[in-house]
Amino acid sequence: MKLRCPICGKTYDEPVQRCECGEPVEFELFEGEPYIGKSVWERFWDFWPVEPALEFSLGEGDTPLVKSRLGDGFGVKLYLKNETVNPTWSFKDRGTFLAMSYALKAGYKAVGTVSTGNMAASVSAYASRFGLKAKILVSESASDEKLKAVSVYGGEVIRVFGDYGRLYFESLKLGEKLGVYFINSDNPFRIEGYKGIAFEIAEELTPDYILIPTSSGGLFRGVAKGFIELYENGLIDSIPKLIAVQAKGCSPICKAFLEGKEKVERFENPETIAKAIANPYPPSGNAVLRLLREFGWGCVSVSDDEIRKAQTELATEGLFVQPASATGVAALKKLNLPEGAKVVSILTGSGLRALKDAPAGKITECPLEGLKNCLR
Amino acid sequence: MKLRCPICGKTYDEPVQRCECGEPVEFELFEGEPYIGKSVWERFWDFWPVEPALEFSLGEGDTPLVKSRLGDGFGVKLYLKNETVNPTWSFKDRGTFLAMSYALKAGYKAVGTVSTGNMAASVSAYASRFGLKAKILVSESASDEKLKAVSVYGGEVIRVFGDYGRLYFESLKLGEKLGVYFINSDNPFRIEGYKGIAFEIAEELTPDYILIPTSSGGLFRGVAKGFIELYENGLIDSIPKLIAVQAKGCSPICKAFLEGKEKVERFENPETIAKAIANPYPPSGNAVLRLLREFGWGCVSVSDDEIRKAQTELATEGLFVQPASATGVAALKKLNLPEGAKVVSILTGSGLRALKDAPAGKITECPLEGLKNCLR
Repeated sequence: MKLRCPICGKTYDEPVQRCECGEPVEFELFEGEPYIGKSVWERFWDFWPVEPALEFSLGEGDTPLVKSRLGDGFGVKLYLKNETVNPTWSFKDRGTFLAMSYALKAGYKAVGTVSTGNMAASVSAYASRFGLKAKILVSESASDEKLKAVSVYGGEVIRVFGDYGRLYFESLKLGEKLGVYFINSDNPFRIEGYKGIAFEIAEELTPDYILIPTSSGGLFRGVAKGFIELYENGLIDSIPKLIAVQAKGCSPICKAFLEGKEKVERFENPETIAKAIANPYPPSGNAVLRLLREFGWGCVSVSDDEIRKAQTELATEGLFVQPASATGVAALKKLNLPEGAKVVSILTGSGLRALKDAPAGKITECPLEGLKNCLR
Repeated sequence: MKLRCPICGKTYDEPVQRCECGEPVEFELFEGEPYIGKSVWERFWDFWPVEPALEFSLGEGDTPLVKSRLGDGFGVKLYLKNETVNPTWSFKDRGTFLAMSYALKAGYKAVGTVSTGNMAASVSAYASRFGLKAKILVSESASDEKLKAVSVYGGEVIRVFGDYGRLYFESLKLGEKLGVYFINSDNPFRIEGYKGIAFEIAEELTPDYILIPTSSGGLFRGVAKGFIELYENGLIDSIPKLIAVQAKGCSPICKAFLEGKEKVERFENPETIAKAIANPYPPSGNAVLRLLREFGWGCVSVSDDEIRKAQTELATEGLFVQPASATGVAALKKLNLPEGAKVVSILTGSGLRALKDAPAGKITECPLEGLKNCLR
């Protein structure tokens, strides 16, 4: 097991959470070949940093790649990778499962995370599944209603009063001291779990572009590493172009990228309906920035109005997603991609988790006696 | 295409919705063999009454079969068939997709359904996906919040004032006149779609018992027909015992079964937290009753308290389901099944759709400065 800091290059033989320089670490590239198997874990068995604890799997991964009409207007072939059908209805389950497999093997009795949404639910669910205690640190403003979908799994939900931004680093520090393994947004095992998205896409398609809603940068890094490993092992002929998509109201990575900055800076006064990607100071921001430049990839930000419109369009394809998941389709309009390009947009989480912010359709009323007229 | 009434035996060459005697019709048994393929539609290609319109598929079906600890206390091997990871997060999508494939092929421009929950969302979503208009008839008491998850897909949601029970039959009658194809709970194509659950289970396991939350009877009939077809085609050696599970507060089928009645009667004053299975006068009730007796199967009802407890237990397995979906696990305690029996319980729909009724876990509060103590 060897980890490396993608920024300063320092290597580690133990699975540390972050490099001494403050940046995230990541596992070196894996070598291997694919096998026949039911789950993505089995088919890409050589590519995981820890043996997946299949007896505790909930069937995460192996999500549908759905053909969409929404690319037609832009002359591209659009495919939607529907991560909303994971066990807790977001892509987080892939990373949570793999990181939890490590925590169990390493002998931890408790795990934790810092999140109020998809990741909180995912870690709470898998902790119970694995028989581990969970400490879910949520922001003071999280509503009781929203937290129900987290606490229901049995994890201990802790509302922390104070600077929520500091919690990410504070939790890693305290967790190490107290023997609580924190599986935060860019935990190195979590990142590895997201590679499965790239593997599954490559099994079905040779895409030209991948649109990735980007907040902390964990998902982006995982998908990137997946495609890079496929390429380095000779399993695909070229690496698709990855586009990080952010909400205009909280787009620290795009800002640094477009301004040619070396480091991502804290985004002041973040405000967007895409709550799931509203991290103003992304812990993997610099690592994503480096990938974007090294590979000549791109970063695009979209407004709340554009996100809302894309969310409604996706629903007419039969896919109800949370606002953050609609950013990829919203970005399509700004990218001017080449005619006929094959594009995959990743739908990260279910619209049911953000029902309050969902666009409502029209509801009409009709007396039973007049039903005939209402049905015409 | 040949349909038959399982009660009076009359046959039809056209896909009518119900028999002249008032009972549901069903397709005769299919003959065939399984193939290699990615989706259940392709692997069991011979077994569908209409060609599945795969270009409009959202990836419904092929859901995980999850091993559960919850059978340990009862000496059985329990598996959970997790239907909450379908595209609109319930089993309904399987039937909706197949019925919609027929509606499109038959030239209908509009489809409809009578439902306020899972089926409403499913039909609304797939109608938009297939490019058809949808008329979703909901009860007058349905909350705006709940209906958002239906109307968001673009289907026309119609709140009907009057006797909701009459709507099932009224909609079929008017739909036929007006060219709106109603895909209600036991539409014959819908039933066929549910066979996929039996097919997938048989691909992984030789179960002894299947626990099926039962309301209208559509799901039960579909799963039963799936296993019967597998058996008649020599693909399995024996048919598992199917157990219909109902909520005690609305258990018309169990009541008729236990009292030895020939027909299911309307259940008076229904009341249960398991809203998704609270049909007091199930349109496929008599057909289910006949199956139970013909095969020597069973019917069990469980109280709201038992349902709530099972819902919480399932969440500690990492699976957050709606109350109706927890009835199977609740029934386990009352069944006294033989030691070592292999039991599958079908988890029909996501807990996110009934978040208001979900059991809340504990939420504690902690100042950031005192986090160390809170994490101990």
